Amino acid sequence: MTGPAERRRVVIGGVGPEIDGGRFAIKRIAGEGVHVEADVFTDGHDRLRCVLRHRPESSPEWTEVEMRSLGNDRWAGGFAAGATGRHRYGIVAWIDPFGAWAERLAARLAAGQDPGSELLVGQRMVSDAAGRASGADAATLRECARKIADPVGGPGLAASEDLTRLMREYDDRTGTSIYEKELPLVVDRERARFSAWYEMFPRSAGQPERHGTLADVVTRLPLIARMGFDVLYLPPIHPIGDAHRRGPNNTGTPSASDVGSPWAIGASTGGHDAVHPRLGTIDDLRDLVAAAARAGIDVALDLAFQCSPDHPYVREHPEWFRHRPDGTIQNAENPPKRYLDIYPFDFDTEDRRGLWGELLRVVRFWIAQGIRVFRVDNPHTKPFAFWEWLIGEVKTREPDVIFLSEAFTRPKVMYHLAKLGFTQSYTYFAWRNTKAEIVAYFTELAQTDVRDHFRANLWPNTPDILTEQLQYGGRAAFIARLTLAATLGASYGIYGPAFELGESRAVRHGSEEYLDSEKYQIRAWDWDERAGIRDIVTRLNHIRREHPALQGDRSLRFHHTDSDMIVAYSKRDAERGDTVLVVVNLDPHHTQAGFVDLALADLGLGTGDSFQVHDLLSGGRYLWRGSRNYVELDPRTLPAHVFAVRRKVRTERDFDYYE
Amino acid sequence: MTGPAERRRVVIGGVGPEIDGGRFAIKRIAGEGVHVEADVFTDGHDRLRCVLRHRPESSPEWTEVEMRSLGNDRWAGGFAAGATGRHRYGIVAWIDPFGAWAERLAARLAAGQDPGSELLVGQRMVSDAAGRASGADAATLRECARKIADPVGGPGLAASEDLTRLMREYDDRTGTSIYEKELPLVVDRERARFSAWYEMFPRSAGQPERHGTLADVVTRLPLIARMGFDVLYLPPIHPIGDAHRRGPNNTGTPSASDVGSPWAIGASTGGHDAVHPRLGTIDDLRDLVAAAARAGIDVALDLAFQCSPDHPYVREHPEWFRHRPDGTIQNAENPPKRYLDIYPFDFDTEDRRGLWGELLRVVRFWIAQGIRVFRVDNPHTKPFAFWEWLIGEVKTREPDVIFLSEAFTRPKVMYHLAKLGFTQSYTYFAWRNTKAEIVAYFTELAQTDVRDHFRANLWPNTPDILTEQLQYGGRAAFIARLTLAATLGASYGIYGPAFELGESRAVRHGSEEYLDSEKYQIRAWDWDERAGIRDIVTRLNHIRREHPALQGDRSLRFHHTDSDMIVAYSKRDAERGDTVLVVVNLDPHHTQAGFVDLALADLGLGTGDSFQVHDLLSGGRYLWRGSRNYVELDPRTLPAHVFAVRRKVRTERDFDYYE
Repeated sequence: MTGPAERRRVVIGGVGPEIDGGRFAIKRIAGEGVHVEADVFTDGHDRLRCVLRHRPESSPEWTEVEMRSLGNDRWAGGFAAGATGRHRYGIVAWIDPFGAWAERLAARLAAGQDPGSELLVGQRMVSDAAGRASGADAATLRECARKIADPVGGPGLAASEDLTRLMREYDDRTGTSIYEKELPLVVDRERARFSAWYEMFPRSAGQPERHGTLADVVTRLPLIARMGFDVLYLPPIHPIGDAHRRGPNNTGTPSASDVGSPWAIGASTGGHDAVHPRLGTIDDLRDLVAAAARAGIDVALDLAFQCSPDHPYVREHPEWFRHRPDGTIQNAENPPKRYLDIYPFDFDTEDRRGLWGELLRVVRFWIAQGIRVFRVDNPHTKPFAFWEWLIGEVKTREPDVIFLSEAFTRPKVMYHLAKLGFTQSYTYFAWRNTKAEIVAYFTELAQTDVRDHFRANLWPNTPDILTEQLQYGGRAAFIARLTLAATLGASYGIYGPAFELGESRAVRHGSEEYLDSEKYQIRAWDWDERAGIRDIVTRLNHIRREHPALQGDRSLRFHHTDSDMIVAYSKRDAERGDTVLVVVNLDPHHTQAGFVDLALADLGLGTGDSFQVHDLLSGGRYLWRGSRNYVELDPRTLPAHVFAVRRKVRTERDFDYYE
Repeated sequence: MTGPAERRRVVIGGVGPEIDGGRFAIKRIAGEGVHVEADVFTDGHDRLRCVLRHRPESSPEWTEVEMRSLGNDRWAGGFAAGATGRHRYGIVAWIDPFGAWAERLAARLAAGQDPGSELLVGQRMVSDAAGRASGADAATLRECARKIADPVGGPGLAASEDLTRLMREYDDRTGTSIYEKELPLVVDRERARFSAWYEMFPRSAGQPERHGTLADVVTRLPLIARMGFDVLYLPPIHPIGDAHRRGPNNTGTPSASDVGSPWAIGASTGGHDAVHPRLGTIDDLRDLVAAAARAGIDVALDLAFQCSPDHPYVREHPEWFRHRPDGTIQNAENPPKRYLDIYPFDFDTEDRRGLWGELLRVVRFWIAQGIRVFRVDNPHTKPFAFWEWLIGEVKTREPDVIFLSEAFTRPKVMYHLAKLGFTQSYTYFAWRNTKAEIVAYFTELAQTDVRDHFRANLWPNTPDILTEQLQYGGRAAFIARLTLAATLGASYGIYGPAFELGESRAVRHGSEEYLDSEKYQIRAWDWDERAGIRDIVTRLNHIRREHPALQGDRSLRFHHTDSDMIVAYSKRDAERGDTVLVVVNLDPHHTQAGFVDLALADLGLGTGDSFQVHDLLSGGRYLWRGSRNYVELDPRTLPAHVFAVRRKVRTERDFDYYE
């Protein structure tokens, strides 16, 4: 009777997930579930229908999924994320007069009232629906319209499944309310969510006393693959500047043979699109990428958008740098410190188009060499708008590219970078050591809105971070931190040999810098497969691959323990029936014991269930029942349990087994 | 160097208060504080300035308030709400290079570095600022620019308060980020937040056996004013239909003398803009409004937008009602129930302009008679868009008009109506009886975002609601529920004589309907001032007026007690140093005793403070110290303490008194 606008009486709000009012995309991997909820209601007592719809951004065609009422005007629906790339989802809802009419009719009949006048109302609705249908459906609806006014047969027809289905299909949607936002969804490939990173300096990949090469890295691939890593991250592989080169242990007085920091990018032999001559050639990189691919490994390069004073850009594009009033180029600085070997770009340069375009060209250059993963150095010191633009440009063409944000900065800045498009992000994991810190931080990451845009990548160490835990905790601390990283995080990484071999010497007391850091010199590592804790690294990566529960973070739940030194948590893949329970002794020096109070429902267990916990690290198996169970962990043997949880099932032949 | 758009590097988000992304207004009364917080940050390490700004909606001129950093990239600022009407507030932020420069310079000087080059950078900034200034300020800045490059005098000048102030005033704001939303704020008069409502049926205001009149209501005003009420709410005063008139106790067989329900509006003598002839005339209403105003009382009328079959609209505008296929007008119904005495409007009528316009005319008609407060009957059964439009139209001209929403419906619908513009809202208070219910519900109302748009008005009873608590709890239940309503809610109301006189008889067991309900018949009440619990009502209203702490709801805090039957909470007006602590025994049958664990900080007390709690109901005074204190409440005397909390202060002459 009135125009559709006036009839849009349904209110849709409180939609989740929704990042900053739809300004930013939620993230999923292909095939992953997208569960959407909303408050949907109208004035009066009308019945509603509510539909979740989604489409690839490139298509105008929506796919619709009926939402279900959860009560209290909350509705829910879900769909599996489609192909990699950008998608949209939204909600539409409208008033369902036929559903309300059928309910009303039933109430009248139950009260023994004459349905006559109601049947006429229904007849009009069915007849209108026939007008919207075509073919056989239209004919069926026309026939129903004829029959439904009959006081004897009408009520039965009104309640029939066939008519209900047809009336839903040919519903009058002219008054449909459309949620004002088409919310963005970015779908990545699986490695965006589940990945094990291995960082190594290629120049240390060779034999002792020789500058390693990319070809040497190829010879290390079998070991890295057997350990179970699937991303091999190399610090910058570009020519290194001579000007103000840093010496070993970051001294300012290098000798002629010192190799400098790989982050001081650019020399006469080239800049961001060149390979350091002593590492090899572009072809060597292609060979490495191909060999890694055969081993199921992505090679990740470092995007460090800064220059040494010797970088070709400095000569060719002085306008891309900031100048002091005296005409000199502004160094990187953190007053009173100055970093004389680094010139930051001036992203606000008048030649913004030129600089930004060149950096995009650099990224695309490496993509053309087969690189699909980038670790981005210090993204928080470049404009937010730059990253949103760059990542957007890249992923429009290549949606499978992964960007890891190296921003150990303020929480809101870290989250904002993730929102702008970074696929994964370093976290504060390295500095979350106590039980209270771990529980609070990972509950925030896995159980709040953060989980929809921020994918954590947990690093117990990096070339910049040798935590005090690792400096003073010995082998137990390495294993405990490794176990936490690999099981709290579906994505995690280690700065390789230094970690596996237990390198724990800091440059000085109170510093987190490594002594003889590879950032400034070549290190000769023991590449023997059995050295250090490589067996435990291997076992953990194997467990991660075998257990889908560990391949995502959203199911993370902490369980109460009565010791501040023992943290317990579980992850569960309900669909595949996989549950992993991890218990870690955070004290690297003493045996700790106590009771774990399991939230059984989070483990897929009922109150009375017996179950087996099978320690995938030690091989031990324990039979538990009920929520309260005893654990004891001696750091001298293993500071952690990684349990597969198996419910006991009694077979028909009265023979027990564990699922 | 680049355009301002590219330089807008500051991100502003996480703004609160903000209702549904700025779609709806927050509410304050004139002079009330508006505290705003936001996440504000940029890339890199730049310093920011952040400003909260506000303006009346009718003015383009912003007033600015500098925000302060709370740490972790959170900023805060505040202002006092202006005159009644609609306002806007927003946030702007920009990078503060001079502030960063001054910090950098100080760091260099502290490290003994040569400031030379830095001073030149500063000189350029000061010189640029001089270009933006005029008059004496420009001259001063020009002089500073000359002097600041001097290695001896420059550093001192850079740190000087005068230069800092001038540089802030003439800051370069070309790269300012403006928060994308100008958030709406509705400012109401004080009664919107703090009001005590008294509901009575004017036809019961006279002598027994006689139909009361509006003139009789005038004779009741002194009592109502002395009891301390400031809103007198009258159910519909319009002519009542004859068709299908309901008899006493909602029977369908009225006698000729039965008066019918005031909500069956409209008869041959007129409709929504007429006064029932037996109540009097429009002039009588004007007289009542004037007399009430002299007593400091607003008269509130009922907006019940529905018609009896005898309403003039039914004849003159049949198109404003919904018709059945058989041509009859659709009654109100809740199948299988039909309400034959009521026709709802069809707000979707083709003549929407005519119907909506007429209802606005009705409201404006009563405003022209001096009415400034409306209680709106069942707003949730009319379109949301109608209310937003109607209230918006009314308040544009008359911003001091108050609308109370009578929607005892689903929580999200109640909240949505408040967002659409209702000034106050009935709540679920009547059905929140246990301690757990009370704590959960009022924490939600006072401590979540709800508090910015939903102003609760608490009614222990209404003509529709005689709760089981009141049916079975006796005098103690009446006093306890009254105390809860009057102190949990800055606004509350009672359905008058029935409450004060302890009317507790339901029409039948299990029903919340009054026996011999005034909805269907005249009642003869005892108007004697000392009858029932009028003295306690009077005392509570007096306490509310004396204690600013009770005049708002945002400060409400619950305190732990070790009894499930004892609820304790406080309100505080920190500015005026007023604190009230309320302790209620929820059990009307037994004495309850236990310890209250006070959160002393919420009472404005320190851990070691001694304090006096002065029971404003009984007059008793108790000397307490520390957080844990004993209470005992006998429902046969008084089931509640309403304590003024007074901190003990030791004077210089070693003489104690209580603040």
